[in-house]
Amino acid sequence: MSEWISLSKAAEILRSSEEFFILTHRYPDGDAIGSSCGLAILLQSMGKKAQIVCADPFSSRFSHSTGGVRPETVSPDAPVVTVDLADVQLAGSECAALAERALLSVDHHGTNRGYAVYTYLERDAAAACELVALLARELAVPLTRDLANCIYTGICTDTGCFKYPSTSARTHRIAAELIEAGADAAAISRLMFDTKTPARVMLEKTVMNSITYGYGGKLALTLLPKAVIEESGAEEADINGLSALARQIEGVELALFLRETGRERYKISARSGDLVDAAAFCAKFGGGGHRRAAGCKLEGDLDTVRQKLIEAAGEVF
Amino acid sequence: MSEWISLSKAAEILRSSEEFFILTHRYPDGDAIGSSCGLAILLQSMGKKAQIVCADPFSSRFSHSTGGVRPETVSPDAPVVTVDLADVQLAGSECAALAERALLSVDHHGTNRGYAVYTYLERDAAAACELVALLARELAVPLTRDLANCIYTGICTDTGCFKYPSTSARTHRIAAELIEAGADAAAISRLMFDTKTPARVMLEKTVMNSITYGYGGKLALTLLPKAVIEESGAEEADINGLSALARQIEGVELALFLRETGRERYKISARSGDLVDAAAFCAKFGGGGHRRAAGCKLEGDLDTVRQKLIEAAGEVF
Repeated sequence: MSEWISLSKAAEILRSSEEFFILTHRYPDGDAIGSSCGLAILLQSMGKKAQIVCADPFSSRFSHSTGGVRPETVSPDAPVVTVDLADVQLAGSECAALAERALLSVDHHGTNRGYAVYTYLERDAAAACELVALLARELAVPLTRDLANCIYTGICTDTGCFKYPSTSARTHRIAAELIEAGADAAAISRLMFDTKTPARVMLEKTVMNSITYGYGGKLALTLLPKAVIEESGAEEADINGLSALARQIEGVELALFLRETGRERYKISARSGDLVDAAAFCAKFGGGGHRRAAGCKLEGDLDTVRQKLIEAAGEVF
Repeated sequence: MSEWISLSKAAEILRSSEEFFILTHRYPDGDAIGSSCGLAILLQSMGKKAQIVCADPFSSRFSHSTGGVRPETVSPDAPVVTVDLADVQLAGSECAALAERALLSVDHHGTNRGYAVYTYLERDAAAACELVALLARELAVPLTRDLANCIYTGICTDTGCFKYPSTSARTHRIAAELIEAGADAAAISRLMFDTKTPARVMLEKTVMNSITYGYGGKLALTLLPKAVIEESGAEEADINGLSALARQIEGVELALFLRETGRERYKISARSGDLVDAAAFCAKFGGGGHRRAAGCKLEGDLDTVRQKLIEAAGEVF
């Protein structure tokens, strides 16, 4: 069972070793990349060694984050710190061994049940990157431009660019410091939100054309077949955010995005409004996340999977 | 010729009368609505009377702003304060008389050449609403929730939700204060950015289907015919932001959005990246605005208008 610790204890743990593995979840988004790169830069600036591990590569779209990290390897038995990782499974099977021996988990997911020896968890933090900012302050490491870029990336992506209810006064004040530290805020948010590759345009059209509704328009389902992802040449960065599209339509309280990950295998992203708890919905299928954004996995043919989801939504509506 | 004044002098002017007209530009966007409502609430909380005037109605989508204003009328010869109004013409012909006798202009457009007796202009402010926040501080008027909602609306819309380069550390710190004052930040930004009415979905499809490119993809033109606006039942709020769609596509340095406003009459919105000065481009046609977002008007049949724009773009590329 994990020990739930404070910011200062987490900082103590980071001081306690000369080298660390840093592990985050697979299909890494802006917060996973920003927080792992940010923590690596933080540790490296303290004279330590840090090696980032992830089941999937970090897209070149995130060069503002990755560019500041010194690539290096650590001893195979170096302690493991995880960032933005709510559960061992989310690291991917190839990283399970590292995840299972995690010393410290730095996270903001309410569904993190404590798989690491120590868990520094702030449910109300807008992003794991917000916690990296707090750690930098606690460790008296000044914000450089590189570090600020990483933190800004995670915060802006996880808040939908300061839009979601998780955005607090603290979030904005941290952003102000990041800008003063030289973060390329506009360039990063433009890359994250306002740059659509041809692949992305193709995926958006597919997703928007796939929308089906239920329960008087309160439920929306969208689908992204694997074949389309492959045909479009899309990167992970192009896929992030597609789950939010249907949620933007007036009246939709629960938007379910079905991404085909393999034969009869789907990764479901749930995005909800005030009326629905997305984490509770996904928990019915062994998943979890946040109240308004959560995920789960389902197996079976498409019709069966859709049916299960629609029935589960019926319990809510 | 206008007298260019400081924040404290602007505050003095606002103290100097018991009633004011507040005038903003036609086709009002979030900043026009937020700043006029915010200034009205500010003045009313000082015990004064304020009457907002605009050539177009404020959409019900902006009830977070309008809801806090006490509707009232002032004497026909009450002094006029304009907000977010760069030029008399932008107020619309029905409001020209008021605009031409403006006592004070509170603005952030570099193209404001000083039509009012006094001009309080901060080019670097992210929104006219940022100036309303500074005025509230200068006048020692506490931020109430209603006032905070107005200011938040203008700031988030004019920065594309804290995304554009105009977003400064100060912008974020003001946002932090607004959240602490109880602003319904998430609800407002969701309404502004993530709520698409069926009308909006129809307009987006039309605009995206109309895209044509030039100069190796650096130029993009989009078109919104008047007939489509009418058929969709769209409100002004549904149209705002359509101009940014083509600019989101990778490689596009100048996006020109042609909105048909009447027979052979077009309102052009230009959105640009680092390489192009949108205000300078629009100035060729008698328009203006900001370096990355500007506008102008053109008359003529569609082909002629497009040709003129393409040729002018050729001078840039």
